Amino acid sequence: MLSRNQSKLITSLRLSKFRQEEGLFVVEGVKMVGELLASDFAIKTIFATQEWISGAHLPPSRYLVEIEEINDSDLEKVSNLTTPNQVLAVAFIKQSKAFKCCDNEWILALDQIRDPGNMGTIIRTADWFGIQRIVASTGTVDIWNPKVVQASMGSVFRIPVHYTDLDQFLREAVEHSPVYGALLDGESLSDATLGMNGVLVIGNESHGISKQIQSLVSHRITIPSAIPGVQGRAESLNASMATGIFCYEINRQRQLKE
Amino acid sequence: MLSRNQSKLITSLRLSKFRQEEGLFVVEGVKMVGELLASDFAIKTIFATQEWISGAHLPPSRYLVEIEEINDSDLEKVSNLTTPNQVLAVAFIKQSKAFKCCDNEWILALDQIRDPGNMGTIIRTADWFGIQRIVASTGTVDIWNPKVVQASMGSVFRIPVHYTDLDQFLREAVEHSPVYGALLDGESLSDATLGMNGVLVIGNESHGISKQIQSLVSHRITIPSAIPGVQGRAESLNASMATGIFCYEINRQRQLKE
Repeated sequence: MLSRNQSKLITSLRLSKFRQEEGLFVVEGVKMVGELLASDFAIKTIFATQEWISGAHLPPSRYLVEIEEINDSDLEKVSNLTTPNQVLAVAFIKQSKAFKCCDNEWILALDQIRDPGNMGTIIRTADWFGIQRIVASTGTVDIWNPKVVQASMGSVFRIPVHYTDLDQFLREAVEHSPVYGALLDGESLSDATLGMNGVLVIGNESHGISKQIQSLVSHRITIPSAIPGVQGRAESLNASMATGIFCYEINRQRQLKE
Repeated sequence: MLSRNQSKLITSLRLSKFRQEEGLFVVEGVKMVGELLASDFAIKTIFATQEWISGAHLPPSRYLVEIEEINDSDLEKVSNLTTPNQVLAVAFIKQSKAFKCCDNEWILALDQIRDPGNMGTIIRTADWFGIQRIVASTGTVDIWNPKVVQASMGSVFRIPVHYTDLDQFLREAVEHSPVYGALLDGESLSDATLGMNGVLVIGNESHGISKQIQSLVSHRITIPSAIPGVQGRAESLNASMATGIFCYEINRQRQLKE
């Protein structure tokens, strides 16, 4: 049974304001809740249909988690998915730990990524390519937005994302590490020599990297199109696509060295 | 003024059935309608606010196109966008021409791509990297779906997409050309030697390339993750992301040869 208060809480968590107030976020579906259960995130309540409950999805470490049985029509009422899938979990937001930039790793720095689908895809792709940390400007979409969580396919439980004053972060980072910017001009990504550490800055979907942040980029890099400068081609790549291609190239060059 | 019939026509074009019946599709917003006007697609009607009309957006070749002035509230009623933007055009679907596979080009073959956002991003990215042609299984989402059109950022006006029996197409293609499949196993993309022509098969978002189509793949290729096989990493990449990374690598190797 889903109480009125529970139902109100779950739907309120669609908004960033209430997620911050409650320190909670929502995860949905068999696969994604499976990823949550396998992570070290604390869970408040799992709302699940009889089908999920009888499927013995709980690992031993989670036997004590609170489970509420609900029916499909209740699930539909609170779900953010077009096709709700057996289970919805309410989990506690984990604060990301402080860290020191950036001796021996690649860091992804996001300047005002706004689209939740893009953000989720960026996190998933960074995870695939072994990026260990993401830094995001305070104007970047909240990773605990349900659409980001779902689009990340669980990678949001693995990569820490630090929201910070990006300008100040890069001022310090550039002292220790090259700062690469994904731009529409600069050295071709295929020709660039990428080391074992660095910061990669990805800009907003419509406006790219802001002027202020561009001034802190030490290496301007561009993804070569097939016929550079030919009119009538696509003007740019999607922000998450650009991120993925940069991460592929970083990983390709790293594996050549190993 | 927007008549009731016009309004009904525009909203009916959200559905594939009516797009096929009418041979029409919808394009929205200043930038995208600009791309449409610059293309060789025939336009039926442009519905635009005074602001757009007074902005002199029409190239000389389009002076004879039918323009209906509408107000913002009418535009909002028929728009598919969260924030409608001055103009909506109804254009004629262009049938793609027959072609012969595939002596001197790279062809992208899509096996059941279902998500309109993915489809649009795939077309945009293929355009950036100079792919000249896309072949799609009949179960792939319709490119004239408004979400595909918008996500393609105009690239849908430049790259022909042929819907066909993919199985039969690949049976013929593999006689003339290598057929690469983007899979979770196979040779690493970074190690593969990609020639100047080929077919690249991308599979469905959830199920990958179907078994039947896999049997026609001559080269199984995988995108290397940072630490192959490590548990807890992302399980896969999004279908459009995989497409983009393959296209980047094809283009990188082609430019090395030139």
